[in-house]
Amino acid sequence: MSDLSVKRFRYVSASDAVNITLNSFDAPPRRIKIVSIDKAFNEILAENIVVKDDVPPHDVSHFDGYAVDFRDLRDASPSNPVHLRVIGSVFPGDDEVPEIGSGEACYVATGAFIPRNANTIVPVEAVNLIDENVIEVRFPPKIGDHIISRGSDLRGGEVVFKTGRVLRAFDVGLLAFLGFEAVRVFVKPKIGVLSSGDELVSSRFTSHSLMLSYLIRRFCGCPVDLGVVRDDRSEIVDVIRKGLKDTDCIMTIGGCSRGVKDLLPDAVLSLSDSNMVLRGLKRVPGRQTSFAVVGGKPVLMLPGLCQSMVVGFYTLGVPIIKKLGGITSQLLFKFKAKVVEDFNASFMPPFERVFFVKLLGFNDLPLVHLVTGPSMHRSVLIKSNGFTVIPPFKINIKRGEIIEVTLF
Amino acid sequence: MSDLSVKRFRYVSASDAVNITLNSFDAPPRRIKIVSIDKAFNEILAENIVVKDDVPPHDVSHFDGYAVDFRDLRDASPSNPVHLRVIGSVFPGDDEVPEIGSGEACYVATGAFIPRNANTIVPVEAVNLIDENVIEVRFPPKIGDHIISRGSDLRGGEVVFKTGRVLRAFDVGLLAFLGFEAVRVFVKPKIGVLSSGDELVSSRFTSHSLMLSYLIRRFCGCPVDLGVVRDDRSEIVDVIRKGLKDTDCIMTIGGCSRGVKDLLPDAVLSLSDSNMVLRGLKRVPGRQTSFAVVGGKPVLMLPGLCQSMVVGFYTLGVPIIKKLGGITSQLLFKFKAKVVEDFNASFMPPFERVFFVKLLGFNDLPLVHLVTGPSMHRSVLIKSNGFTVIPPFKINIKRGEIIEVTLF
Repeated sequence: MSDLSVKRFRYVSASDAVNITLNSFDAPPRRIKIVSIDKAFNEILAENIVVKDDVPPHDVSHFDGYAVDFRDLRDASPSNPVHLRVIGSVFPGDDEVPEIGSGEACYVATGAFIPRNANTIVPVEAVNLIDENVIEVRFPPKIGDHIISRGSDLRGGEVVFKTGRVLRAFDVGLLAFLGFEAVRVFVKPKIGVLSSGDELVSSRFTSHSLMLSYLIRRFCGCPVDLGVVRDDRSEIVDVIRKGLKDTDCIMTIGGCSRGVKDLLPDAVLSLSDSNMVLRGLKRVPGRQTSFAVVGGKPVLMLPGLCQSMVVGFYTLGVPIIKKLGGITSQLLFKFKAKVVEDFNASFMPPFERVFFVKLLGFNDLPLVHLVTGPSMHRSVLIKSNGFTVIPPFKINIKRGEIIEVTLF
Repeated sequence: MSDLSVKRFRYVSASDAVNITLNSFDAPPRRIKIVSIDKAFNEILAENIVVKDDVPPHDVSHFDGYAVDFRDLRDASPSNPVHLRVIGSVFPGDDEVPEIGSGEACYVATGAFIPRNANTIVPVEAVNLIDENVIEVRFPPKIGDHIISRGSDLRGGEVVFKTGRVLRAFDVGLLAFLGFEAVRVFVKPKIGVLSSGDELVSSRFTSHSLMLSYLIRRFCGCPVDLGVVRDDRSEIVDVIRKGLKDTDCIMTIGGCSRGVKDLLPDAVLSLSDSNMVLRGLKRVPGRQTSFAVVGGKPVLMLPGLCQSMVVGFYTLGVPIIKKLGGITSQLLFKFKAKVVEDFNASFMPPFERVFFVKLLGFNDLPLVHLVTGPSMHRSVLIKSNGFTVIPPFKINIKRGEIIEVTLF
C-alpha cells in the first residue's frame, strides 16, 4: 500500500485496520528474562508451566476433624452415641501418617494427609470430646465426607499456564505453591511515546504523553518517553529515527491530520525503509489514526485530540502491544449494557462512532449513560468508565436499547 | 463484643460484619505526600482540585479549517461557489488572534482560538484552495459549526476531582493539562501480611502472602511482608506486637479456625488493649474470618485455604483498606450475568455461599460458568474472573438465571 498519499485519507474499517496493521510487521525475536516470583505479577509468561506432581499429592482433609472408618459410625445416633479412641494427629506438612484400626480415629488438621484405613472425616464441630483420647459421635457420616482426593485440584503433567499469559495475583500464588522461586517472562515491548506540536514544547509534563504512557503500561507495554517535538519536519524525522533504535515501536501523538502543521505522516514516510500501511480509520473520533512500518518496526500515528487519541490507541495500539509482547491473555473486558436515555448519534456514514459511557448501576443489565462532547473535551474521559462503538448507519439510540461496552 | 470467645464462632452476616468492623476503629490521621504528576497514577488524591480558568479559555476550533462569518457563505452552492480571501492563520498556543472582515477567512488549526468577527469553521476538507490566499466554498455552513465554546469542557471554579479519588490515566492527563506539576496524595496505608503455619516456615516464598500482597496493592494498600510465623502462641504474639508498630493494620493468614493449631485469635486477644470484634462470617468459604482491634489498629484474621482467604479479603479487607486510605473511588466492579448451567448449591443456612465464576461471553447478558471445587483448590481461582454470592436459603440455580458478579 505504498501508494497511500500522506495528504489524502483512505479510511479503512476498524476491523480491517487491525488486520492490515498486524499483518504488516513481524514481532521481533522476544527477549526473555528471569524474574523472582515475588516480582512476577503482571509479567508476560515466557514458558509453559507444567504441574509436576498431583495436587494434592495424597488424599487430604478438608476440615479440622477426625479421620475415621465410616463403618464404625454406621449406627451412631443421639440415642446411640459411638465412642472412638484417638490414636494420634496429623498436620499439613507431615509426611508420615499413622494407621487406624477398628474403633479408632486420628485427629487431622485441614490439608493434612489422610491416615491409612481412614475413609471419612468427621469435623471437630460434630464431635464431643469425652477426654483427651476419646471422641463421641452422634450422627453417621457418609463415606468420603470432607476428603479431598489426590490430584483433584491439579493433575501431574497438566499444563496449567501457557506462554503469553499475563500473570495475575492467583497465578503467582499458584507458582509459589508449586515451588517456583523464579519464572521466565518476556521483556515487555518498549513503546516510544512522542508528542508533537509547537504549543507543547514549553510545558514540563505533556498531558497526552502521560495518559498514553499509563495506558501502554496497563496493557503490558513499557513506555519510553521520547519527549515533545516541534512542528518541524527535520526535527520529527530526527527524533523518530533515533527513537526507533531504542524501542520496538513508536506511538506519536498529534500532527497526523491534514492541516498546515500536520507533518507526521510525511516525515515518517521520508525515513528510509518506510511504508505507509494505513491512513485513516472509519471510526470517529480517531479517524486520522495512521500507521506506518519503518525499518520493520511499527509506528502508530495517533491524533492529538484526547478522545481521538484514546480511540486510536484502543483500536490499534492495544493489538500492536499484544503482538509485540507475545501476550495471549484477554486484556480488554467487554459486556452488554442498557442505555438510559434516547440519544441522537449524528449520522456520519461510512464512519462508526465511538461514544464514551458512564456506568450507573444495573437492573438486569448494567445501565450506562452516554457521555458526549467534542473530541477535545477531557471532561468526557474523566467521567467515563469505557466506550461503545455505534455502527455506521445507525442514527438513533433509544432508551432501553442494549449496547456493547468495552471497559477502559 | 468483648464477650466473644475465641473458640466459639459467632457468625455474622457479611453486611453486618462490614458495619461492625468499620465502626470498631478510627482511620489514623492521614499522612500526605507530594508526588510529581508523572508518578501520580493510582495514587489517592489528598486535595480537591479546582479548575482555575474556563477550559477552553476562549472559543476554539474543533477542526483544521477556515474561520469565517457564516453570512458570507449563505448563498454558496455548487453552481454558485463563493471565494474568500485568507488573511492569516492561527495555531494552538497563539494568544493573538486576527480580525476578519467581510469576504475574508482565516486559517485555524484544531484547538486554535477563533479570530474576531468569525462565528463558523469550514473544515479544510470542505474547501478548494484556489491559490495560496483564496479558498472556494460550495456549501453554506451553519452558524457555530465546529466551534467549541469557552468553558464547555470545564468551568473555572469547578471542583473536578475530590479528595479520596484514586487517580486514573485520564485524571493525571487532565491535571498535567491544568498545569499541575505535582499533587498532594495520601500515603497509602501500610498493611502487614503475616502467614502462619509450621508447614510454611521452610519455603522461600509463601503462596498466600504473595497473593494477598498483590490484592492489597490492587486496592491501593501498601503491603508489608511480616513473613511466616510458626504455630506457637508466643511467637505469634511477638510478631504481631512488633508488626503493628510499623503498620496501620495487619492481615493474618491461617490459624483462625477451631483446630488444635488455630492459635491466632487467642494470641491476638492476649495482646494488651485488644478487642475481638468479629468471630466468623455467615459466608462460605471464608466463614472463619475474624477481626480484632489491637491498640486501635485493625487486625483481620483470614482463613488459610486459598478460596476462604480470598472471600474474607474481598468481604472485609477491601473496605478496611478503603477506610484506612481515605479512598472514595469505587474499587470493585459489579454486574449481572446469566448462568449457563443448572447448579445445585448445597443448602447450608444461615450461610451465604460464594461461588467463583468464569466469564464465557455474552448474549444480552454476560454468560458465566460457576467454577467449583473445595476451598483449598487453587485451580478454581486461576480459572475464574470474579465471584457471586448466593443467599442463604437458595439451593438450586437454574440455567439462564441471573446472578450478580463481582470482578476480581
